Amino acid sequence: MLNLRNSPAVLCGHRIDFVPGLAFNSQRSTVLGFPMDRNFHIPSSSSSLTPKQHTPVLPCRASLEVHDTSHRKDDLPTHGLSETVVGVLGGGQLGRMLCQAASQMAIKVIVLDPMENCPASALSHYHMVGSYDDSAMVEEFAKRCGVLTVEIEHVDVATMEKLEQLGVDCQPKASTIRIIQDKYLQKVHFSRHSIPLPDFLQIDNLESAKRAGDLFGYPLMIKSRRLAYDGRGNAVAKSEAELSSAVNALGGYDRGLYVEKWAPFVKELAVIVARGRDDSILCYPVVETIHRENICHIVKAPANVPWKIRKLATDVACKAVSSLEGAGVFAVELFVTEGGQILLNEVAPRPHNSGHHTIESCFTSQFEQHLRAVVGLPLGGTSMKTPSALMYNILGEDEGEPGFLLANQLIGRALRIPGATIHWYDKPEMRKQRKMGHISIVGLSMGIVEARLNLMLREEILDGQTAVTPRVGIVMGSDSDLPVMKDAARILNEFGVPNEVRIVSAHRTPEMMFSYALSARERGIQVIIAGAGGAAHLPGMVAALTPLPVIGVPVRASALDGLDSLLSIVQMPRGVPVATVAINNATNAGLLAVRMLGIGDADLQARMAQYLEDTRDDVLVKAETLEKGGWEAYLNS
Amino acid sequence: MLNLRNSPAVLCGHRIDFVPGLAFNSQRSTVLGFPMDRNFHIPSSSSSLTPKQHTPVLPCRASLEVHDTSHRKDDLPTHGLSETVVGVLGGGQLGRMLCQAASQMAIKVIVLDPMENCPASALSHYHMVGSYDDSAMVEEFAKRCGVLTVEIEHVDVATMEKLEQLGVDCQPKASTIRIIQDKYLQKVHFSRHSIPLPDFLQIDNLESAKRAGDLFGYPLMIKSRRLAYDGRGNAVAKSEAELSSAVNALGGYDRGLYVEKWAPFVKELAVIVARGRDDSILCYPVVETIHRENICHIVKAPANVPWKIRKLATDVACKAVSSLEGAGVFAVELFVTEGGQILLNEVAPRPHNSGHHTIESCFTSQFEQHLRAVVGLPLGGTSMKTPSALMYNILGEDEGEPGFLLANQLIGRALRIPGATIHWYDKPEMRKQRKMGHISIVGLSMGIVEARLNLMLREEILDGQTAVTPRVGIVMGSDSDLPVMKDAARILNEFGVPNEVRIVSAHRTPEMMFSYALSARERGIQVIIAGAGGAAHLPGMVAALTPLPVIGVPVRASALDGLDSLLSIVQMPRGVPVATVAINNATNAGLLAVRMLGIGDADLQARMAQYLEDTRDDVLVKAETLEKGGWEAYLNS
Repeated sequence: MLNLRNSPAVLCGHRIDFVPGLAFNSQRSTVLGFPMDRNFHIPSSSSSLTPKQHTPVLPCRASLEVHDTSHRKDDLPTHGLSETVVGVLGGGQLGRMLCQAASQMAIKVIVLDPMENCPASALSHYHMVGSYDDSAMVEEFAKRCGVLTVEIEHVDVATMEKLEQLGVDCQPKASTIRIIQDKYLQKVHFSRHSIPLPDFLQIDNLESAKRAGDLFGYPLMIKSRRLAYDGRGNAVAKSEAELSSAVNALGGYDRGLYVEKWAPFVKELAVIVARGRDDSILCYPVVETIHRENICHIVKAPANVPWKIRKLATDVACKAVSSLEGAGVFAVELFVTEGGQILLNEVAPRPHNSGHHTIESCFTSQFEQHLRAVVGLPLGGTSMKTPSALMYNILGEDEGEPGFLLANQLIGRALRIPGATIHWYDKPEMRKQRKMGHISIVGLSMGIVEARLNLMLREEILDGQTAVTPRVGIVMGSDSDLPVMKDAARILNEFGVPNEVRIVSAHRTPEMMFSYALSARERGIQVIIAGAGGAAHLPGMVAALTPLPVIGVPVRASALDGLDSLLSIVQMPRGVPVATVAINNATNAGLLAVRMLGIGDADLQARMAQYLEDTRDDVLVKAETLEKGGWEAYLNS
Repeated sequence: MLNLRNSPAVLCGHRIDFVPGLAFNSQRSTVLGFPMDRNFHIPSSSSSLTPKQHTPVLPCRASLEVHDTSHRKDDLPTHGLSETVVGVLGGGQLGRMLCQAASQMAIKVIVLDPMENCPASALSHYHMVGSYDDSAMVEEFAKRCGVLTVEIEHVDVATMEKLEQLGVDCQPKASTIRIIQDKYLQKVHFSRHSIPLPDFLQIDNLESAKRAGDLFGYPLMIKSRRLAYDGRGNAVAKSEAELSSAVNALGGYDRGLYVEKWAPFVKELAVIVARGRDDSILCYPVVETIHRENICHIVKAPANVPWKIRKLATDVACKAVSSLEGAGVFAVELFVTEGGQILLNEVAPRPHNSGHHTIESCFTSQFEQHLRAVVGLPLGGTSMKTPSALMYNILGEDEGEPGFLLANQLIGRALRIPGATIHWYDKPEMRKQRKMGHISIVGLSMGIVEARLNLMLREEILDGQTAVTPRVGIVMGSDSDLPVMKDAARILNEFGVPNEVRIVSAHRTPEMMFSYALSARERGIQVIIAGAGGAAHLPGMVAALTPLPVIGVPVRASALDGLDSLLSIVQMPRGVPVATVAINNATNAGLLAVRMLGIGDADLQARMAQYLEDTRDDVLVKAETLEKGGWEAYLNS
């Protein structure tokens, strides 16, 4: 384990007044020397260099032994969370966000990336300018880290394997990168582990392609095995006639191609899975990913699919990651078919676009989680700390300045959306479809969050304007119930809870009642108050159609004094509860709704406590008046 | 407005292969040259220096004109959120966290701090090593930023005023810093603006001190006017005899002292207030601060005080900040007295320890908010995105390595707490009582969050062990109700909702019922299910004592078939609602509780939707069996 006793400024190598050269005291692992810059250049063949000139002077012991974070080599306590230097191959936005997570924990991250001004450069502990696909470079880089990881899978895996044999600690393991960077090998691997995925077949000439077409039918998905991402490396042949053109579009058979049977999916899901060095595994909530021109565009967390599907997706994701070696977070992309079948699309051995929302919405972000995993800290909680989240990629809409202008206009609107957080990757060049940043929106329900996204995407957004989504739906069987039900709306307005009032009769407009109950949750409604008189079926019917809590208000009809309504609302069969209040007491229905919303809203709960205190005070005042003035005066006043 | 067209690596000045010296193309504002290090040294008198040698080459135009972020000097679109370079006087943990917030938005922050390895150094766009109390240094620094702000109020305010006259954009204004850095002036200012605060009086000799003592009585709080923080600069005289010793402890009258009447507070509160450049004001939720040896130790958000107090505290805080000039976030520290009076303690013109929780718990962190405010972006939402949060300072428990060991042991436990996020400031030296980092814990309720804090502070914490706090309380009038009420517990267990079962009779053990209902919310209970038979008063009584939603289960007693219980539970007066379910139907009570919790728990809600689907399927199966086999077979089977 590489320890760095930290004199940060020195480690960060920003002293101007020092002599380059290594002075490494193994007992305290102190770094006494360091080069003057952070992005230092090493030509592909670093052999020609003397450390004095170009090599950053960090202790190299680390890379020559197997790293084991469980017990330390020296008896000195760790300063902070961990002193392992994390080396990341790649310095794009994923590397950048790894650096951001690391800075909070004061974990040092160094990156290897050929682009001098790559997104991670400015935030990394230091940046080695060079290619992660260059053997000499990667070896040189590995000497400087306690653990080596990746933010991109298209790296020089042969070198990683060689380094592992030398005892360099790679997380995840080179074997995992090798499997994943070749999509065909990946399919073979997962099918061997009986993970459900679309049928596939390797092709190396027109005959084999035709055979595949006969076998799988058309449209046929043709993919190149390597260096494929964001839809690049995919081509579709709608018929046998299109095979050759599709193959040429991918660079010909020599490029290394395979075909996949067309997957008739209805939704795309993704699961971020974290694995610790102790092989403990934790899954993040299943999300839905929405692509635009093959590039991830919007992510919804959690995915709006049946719980059964979410469990199934989680199981497949967990199984897929368990079949791979090494620690870190993995992204598992999945298809859901019409019939509710889950098929694995592909796996990324690193943080992923589908997990960006976790920065704002989960106990532990995917980036902190990846760092915890690779340095050997316990994994953090993966639950959401806010009920709903949505991620929107800022993709280049145009080249150069016009593109920057459009992005800045979007950002200007996002800055006015409550719950929206803007991430800008600081890429020097704007290009069409390039990921320039992303925006996360979190909120109390998916309905609220989606309403805010729509507001953000509107061209015109006025200051102070926010999307107000009703949180409580007040429904009644007929307008004759309104004089009673209005009291619920009045209370909700008093507490500042947005609400809507509708007439949907279970008997006269059953289809309206159906669609209202079924859509309420997705529209952002969190509680439904249903009032009805006589044979009052509305509350029960609504409760049977939605997982939301439903409050029933028995409305006194002409006959039976409302007892009929009360009993027909409260006496529900096992399985479908209705929260019933007193006859005609819509006030209490409103107050009950506020108490329910208070469960997830500390302010509302505090205001309800205050309301109770105030009503208590009112009674005390009356009691005092009676006591002082006597009952005659009281009655006469 | 200073624009930086960004070639980040160049701006970050980490190229080793370049010639120092400025080449600034005003049309594109490109910086072509830069010094080789980030912490560069400027001796106090910078006059002797030539820019070529020591001055960082950033365009200086900015500092010589009034900055106005509303309209740009050139017609080029902003790249990202803002290109204003933010200069921060001070590079401690507050500066560090400002840099972290800035990196997400790709806003460039530069810091002036005398400590070469100060916490903000490694994360800043660059760090000028020098004193923020040194006129020449501050002027030198100001040339490099588009807006100048502070993370500490003990800066050279005279220079700031001079710079403002030169057109340098200081946020907040120098006038504000001048008022706040002298605690006596601060008191005078706020009392002039009729903000409630403890009586105070300036003292410059023993006589005036004695006069103050006679006037305010003892114990008497003596404070030094300047450079006082974390309790330093405060001394208490319990009697007139102790006056001189207390004064000497503070360095004598010449130091500049004043006295405050002892404030008999029951709690300390704080409010972070944000003000934009357009003078728009937003307040964060009121928090409770708990001090240890005068140093902030624990912060609870939101504060557990009546809503009335929270509103009052917010009003006072808002009024206090409105009386000051300039944009940014301000921390307002307050006392609550026995009688519920709010007194202002002091104000900080910057992010504050009491607002650290906002990083994890609010839509916009106080650090992002401060940056939005000073560069002139719209303010972000200040609501909490998670119901409860708690901040625990990691204070040095010992000097040097033993101190690091204790901190690391605490961190080791925190890493196992779900919802806990650890911030380590990377300070090179460990000292007793020094703020080395902090830990935030967020969760569904203060009860849950506090239970997790206690678990974290326990010496022994076993792997996988987490604090399980019951979320639903099931209470009944007598054990005879248990056979019915058990069904509620069974359902909750099925959905994995922690719950507790208690017997508290409204008639036989009223005091138990009282204390249970009153303490439930603080203990983390979110829903109460109360079952009772006969003249069933328990649910109503409990509902009258807590703001939590209460579900009532009428239990069928010997007589009247349970109708008596049903009516006595459901027919509550206006103001106190009980969510009543069918007679003996504790199953529905459990399901209703799950639906209520589902409001703030997307997973529970999805599982409830699944439950409804599954029960639907069961019925369909029965229907099919009946249809296929006929009713005789069905009845005989």
